[in-house]
Amino acid sequence: MVVAVFLGLLGLGAARAQDSSPSSPIVMVVHGGAGTILKRNMTPELEASYQEKLSEGLLAGYRILAAGGSSVDAVVATIRIFEDSPLFNAGKGAVFTAEGKNELDASIMVGSTRQAGAVAGVTGIKNPITAARAVMEATPHVLLAGKGAELFAAEQGIELVDPSYFFTQRRWDALERAREAERVEVREAEPEKENPKGSGGAFGTVGALALDREGVLTAGTSTGGMTNKRHGRVGDSPIIGAGTYANEHCAASGTGHGEFFIRWAVSYDICARVELQGMAIDEAAELVINQELKQVGGSGGVIALDNKGNLSMPFNTEGMYRGYIRDNGKPVVQIYK
Amino acid sequence: MVVAVFLGLLGLGAARAQDSSPSSPIVMVVHGGAGTILKRNMTPELEASYQEKLSEGLLAGYRILAAGGSSVDAVVATIRIFEDSPLFNAGKGAVFTAEGKNELDASIMVGSTRQAGAVAGVTGIKNPITAARAVMEATPHVLLAGKGAELFAAEQGIELVDPSYFFTQRRWDALERAREAERVEVREAEPEKENPKGSGGAFGTVGALALDREGVLTAGTSTGGMTNKRHGRVGDSPIIGAGTYANEHCAASGTGHGEFFIRWAVSYDICARVELQGMAIDEAAELVINQELKQVGGSGGVIALDNKGNLSMPFNTEGMYRGYIRDNGKPVVQIYK
Repeated sequence: MVVAVFLGLLGLGAARAQDSSPSSPIVMVVHGGAGTILKRNMTPELEASYQEKLSEGLLAGYRILAAGGSSVDAVVATIRIFEDSPLFNAGKGAVFTAEGKNELDASIMVGSTRQAGAVAGVTGIKNPITAARAVMEATPHVLLAGKGAELFAAEQGIELVDPSYFFTQRRWDALERAREAERVEVREAEPEKENPKGSGGAFGTVGALALDREGVLTAGTSTGGMTNKRHGRVGDSPIIGAGTYANEHCAASGTGHGEFFIRWAVSYDICARVELQGMAIDEAAELVINQELKQVGGSGGVIALDNKGNLSMPFNTEGMYRGYIRDNGKPVVQIYK
Repeated sequence: MVVAVFLGLLGLGAARAQDSSPSSPIVMVVHGGAGTILKRNMTPELEASYQEKLSEGLLAGYRILAAGGSSVDAVVATIRIFEDSPLFNAGKGAVFTAEGKNELDASIMVGSTRQAGAVAGVTGIKNPITAARAVMEATPHVLLAGKGAELFAAEQGIELVDPSYFFTQRRWDALERAREAERVEVREAEPEKENPKGSGGAFGTVGALALDREGVLTAGTSTGGMTNKRHGRVGDSPIIGAGTYANEHCAASGTGHGEFFIRWAVSYDICARVELQGMAIDEAAELVINQELKQVGGSGGVIALDNKGNLSMPFNTEGMYRGYIRDNGKPVVQIYK
């Protein structure tokens, strides 16, 4: 017993030394949304596009980490690549609200300091993740919403675009289909059924986690929300604890039916189980996604990463765009179950 | 050892039966904000006003619970009384933003179902807690912000007021003082120093928790935010997990420097420690407020209540308007340390 405790203390000491030494393993994990993503509905060309873009994002973050850069730089660089692509429901490819507009949300959190920043409901910021970072670094606040967030971004010299920048035919068609479905049957949104082609995933939020050489974890998430959502609806992506969380032990980013992610405080809950219960990251993430959320009908998935580089990418939908990259610099990308 | 485990199981069984039976104890707990509240700065008349209003709120919720009503009805009734009073930084008494406006936030969560609703940045809704409840009950969403929330409230027939309704001389003077302080020294907001008279508390958010005869917990929070805050800043009050949380085990509502409450996911963290670590509610709440938050400079307090009726009201500031009422119907109200 005494020996076990002694070894335990030694182990703890060794792990801590490794976490904060420049020899911490480097890892990036990303997701590009979860939903009804089925191979039979996917063309080889579209599949290849997703794989290439996910790899490109992973490599952008990896290059920063490999050069000794920070996890926050890596997360922002990776998410900007996804935001600039029409493939994902974030930035350029954001879905339309019920009013035919694009309202974007993003958040970021650095685990070592628990600093965090977020924007919600912005309509003219090209890269919401960059605005979220600026909120974190240049204000005493965590979350700025709507017009106030836009004014702040303008003050900070962050790139603004005309709202028409976010128009894509594919997302407009998805809104038309959702409106048609509402006319057929007035009901609560059933996001999994909104996009029968399965090509984009109804929950195409993007997220990235990074662990840098200093052992610092960062988590970030960016989204265009839910097709046909009510004006002003804020999902889980800009909510610290729901869509995004990072502390010294763990980082997590979610994608799915945001209201469930808020009510179950999903990202923080995974980290709480790691920190307070000593669960392995994979055990905690699986339990939250495939038991807690699944049994109440909360569709979606998460990526989670601990401070030793262990990662988990569970989802309870048909598929989730996801991938990771480690010290060897080889991106691993997956789409289906 | 076997005996202890056996007794433990018996205890658990008895507690569960009690929780769900109509004989659950009834409890209301409230706060009216934490901050630099010092007896030497308070007039006897103002002190009596706070005590009377806190008692009035407690009794309003109590009457509903005693008649077999739900904890959600009790929480809303209590918070509406605080929102209608100019004494608290919520509803009528909301503080002014840097632009001289009033932007209000509120949220509510029912523990048994984890249903939740919230509004953020609303300027013309008389009782934001009622709008938060309507979001919970009449939409598939959790959080509506800004204009979208106002439009929804109008659709629901919720009472609207001209923004001038929220003008109070006392809050305007507080804004003038904060602006003057900024002119003297450009620095990050130090909310505890914004209100040197100590009469209102810089963090005058209000909150209420209730446990009803069915054993259902509900938590609610309402605020006018932070004096001189940036337009669009959203604090912890409308954030499920940060300012408000409730599940089957625990309910919590916070008041304080909101950004810390978001970054530490304070309300959910207390409930996670109760649920995942088996901590007593008082131990969990004290640890989060007087250790975790205090050591990083996160000022404020919480009220927390478990499903057996145990409650906790810790704060790391000079004072917190707070109180509770139990089956005997006698309100207990406290202000100072």
